[in-house]
Amino acid sequence: MIDELGKLPGVGPKSAQRIAFHLLSVEPPDIDRLTAALGRVRDGVQFCEVCGNVSDADRCRICSDARRDGSLVCVVEEPKDVQAVERTREFRGRYHVLGGALDPLSGIGPDQLRIRQLLNRIGERIDGVDITEVIIATDPNTEGEATATYLVRILRDIPGLTVSRIASGLPMGGDLEFADELTLGRALSGRRQMV
Amino acid sequence: MIDELGKLPGVGPKSAQRIAFHLLSVEPPDIDRLTAALGRVRDGVQFCEVCGNVSDADRCRICSDARRDGSLVCVVEEPKDVQAVERTREFRGRYHVLGGALDPLSGIGPDQLRIRQLLNRIGERIDGVDITEVIIATDPNTEGEATATYLVRILRDIPGLTVSRIASGLPMGGDLEFADELTLGRALSGRRQMV
Repeated sequence: MIDELGKLPGVGPKSAQRIAFHLLSVEPPDIDRLTAALGRVRDGVQFCEVCGNVSDADRCRICSDARRDGSLVCVVEEPKDVQAVERTREFRGRYHVLGGALDPLSGIGPDQLRIRQLLNRIGERIDGVDITEVIIATDPNTEGEATATYLVRILRDIPGLTVSRIASGLPMGGDLEFADELTLGRALSGRRQMV
Repeated sequence: MIDELGKLPGVGPKSAQRIAFHLLSVEPPDIDRLTAALGRVRDGVQFCEVCGNVSDADRCRICSDARRDGSLVCVVEEPKDVQAVERTREFRGRYHVLGGALDPLSGIGPDQLRIRQLLNRIGERIDGVDITEVIIATDPNTEGEATATYLVRILRDIPGLTVSRIASGLPMGGDLEFADELTLGRALSGRRQMV
């Protein structure tokens, strides 16, 4: 068991041993619940046919939730980014998961990402709703910025579609003094007009 | 000497001891240069009559530099924030140093900051140049945000003046997954339209 646990990311030999001894001491029903959860992952997890997020049905819960605004689509790299945006409780639209970011050196080009599916999705009226805005929420690092630039280029000519990019700048609670030059430069050039 | 050095911020007893023993081993001219620099601080540092930044003359180097754009003023809390913005090499305007941020619990209200001087400066044409944009670059924390809100309110009614706020959002090189909810929420709500 220690060997198997040690293969998990972020679990080193010592943590694996600690988890293993913890499991020895818990009640059998707790072990059963963990085993059942693992079984559900193995058998049940699929990808949403609309957005590409992990799902336990053909359509994920967000894509099948009628209260979510289908005209607003937030494009992210990975399913874990969907969770990050959901935690903000600020976003009431839907998602599109690319499955990564452009990285030519690792052989990841546009065809390796779910970009064609995004274009199809914008072209079709899913559930009778047109997509009117695409928010590009790829990471603000080299690959994510390259992906954002590429997406802006291919989405530019679609009539009636607004394309936006999440803001880069100073994190909340931060301090100018401790911001790196690049971030503070972005915060300045991306300043918002208030009056 | 160890006692005196230990009074400096960020210098604990051990660092003070290390610095003291280092100074014992350096050449006398190096000590002279340090002493002279300290003397210049004691005798010479004043505040720029225009922007309130630290200066060695009536006007600081930035306010007296004709190549800087006097129509664009970046409002910051402290002189160290001027240095932070200068490091980005993105900003070619001038500054206004408030000398802090609104903090009613510590007794810092509008009258304790250089806000009246800012209004005077906007009213006067300094060197024949009108101020057309004020960029509020206070820290994105509670006091800095309160100060920004206050400044927007009092600057709102000045005709022909644009007021802007530096962007809050994800720092460059960052990752959605590790952003806190508040920052990611700001990055979303402050998204920039690209197309």
